[in-house]
Amino acid sequence: MPRSSGSPDIKHVLLEERLIGYLDPGAEKFLKPINEGGLTTTSSCTGRITIVDGKWHWLRDRSRIVFKTHAEISPVDLAYALAGPYDDLWLKVTGPIVHAKAPSLDCAAKALQAARDAGFKHSGAISLGEEVVLELISAVQITVPLKREGVILVNPTSIYVLARTANEALRDGWRRLERLSGLLSQLGCQEGS
Amino acid sequence: MPRSSGSPDIKHVLLEERLIGYLDPGAEKFLKPINEGGLTTTSSCTGRITIVDGKWHWLRDRSRIVFKTHAEISPVDLAYALAGPYDDLWLKVTGPIVHAKAPSLDCAAKALQAARDAGFKHSGAISLGEEVVLELISAVQITVPLKREGVILVNPTSIYVLARTANEALRDGWRRLERLSGLLSQLGCQEGS
Repeated sequence: MPRSSGSPDIKHVLLEERLIGYLDPGAEKFLKPINEGGLTTTSSCTGRITIVDGKWHWLRDRSRIVFKTHAEISPVDLAYALAGPYDDLWLKVTGPIVHAKAPSLDCAAKALQAARDAGFKHSGAISLGEEVVLELISAVQITVPLKREGVILVNPTSIYVLARTANEALRDGWRRLERLSGLLSQLGCQEGS
Repeated sequence: MPRSSGSPDIKHVLLEERLIGYLDPGAEKFLKPINEGGLTTTSSCTGRITIVDGKWHWLRDRSRIVFKTHAEISPVDLAYALAGPYDDLWLKVTGPIVHAKAPSLDCAAKALQAARDAGFKHSGAISLGEEVVLELISAVQITVPLKREGVILVNPTSIYVLARTANEALRDGWRRLERLSGLLSQLGCQEGS
């Protein structure tokens, strides 16, 4: 059944995503237009700032998030984590990431082109089975080793600059997400097209 | 025409890539098995460590690389860059990235699964036209703002730890690339399959 824009289905899916915690506050205003253009978004994130405890931030099963926000970080948050009982800490800014199903290969190809135009240069189709699943992702990322084996690597006087840098990067991600949302709302894909 | 493993075609493509500078030293031993499994690699990188001059490392047209290596970085390289006439500097470790054409959608789907099994979690098909082009990429990345508006953010005494961290990350990327190469050599895709 083709979905019409603004149908209860879309609202239902977005609500469900929010309830199970996949959807961060503020994501709906970007995701609703994307769904209206014909993609069906699944887990998505507008970007976030985290502090991760672990030797390598990319090893999910051997690290854990000790601070997380979808808004800005304050220097106090940074100082608080640095004073905590952790041997290895990372500050991580992750740009927006959108996962979405496309109703056809043609639609997926058009969406990937739009994503690149919006500055999501690492976008790709991550599943090519019966459903085409897209991961739309930009190169906006900061990953700073703050502490290694108990040694603090950042200059304590510069945590203000570090927090400001992280917050500016987060906002850059939001601007890209707004462009992406605008372009994908015009995609005009329908079920089976 | 189906390519057979070890054909002059593959060698020719890899040689051309190396001559035009897309292929870093040491890449061939990983890429040859991948090509033998049925994918055709294009621009690829085994991972690298760079120091980037610019406000945001992800804005390619507003930043430039002032140091680059596909091998390890020494603390002296870091100190030298920090002493240079730059306002904004990033230390960047980029894990391996493989671009490859797949002869069919089925083959692309199999390759994506293998890539995820090898720890290349952000892999996807970046082009879905007549040719399917894959970007195989992991989450191994470090991006440290070293200097912002003339202010050095890292503790000068910790550049040894920073260099060691960067080098360990690079080696983690090599281990993943070796796994990827092994898995993709067994892909068994043929032209049109």
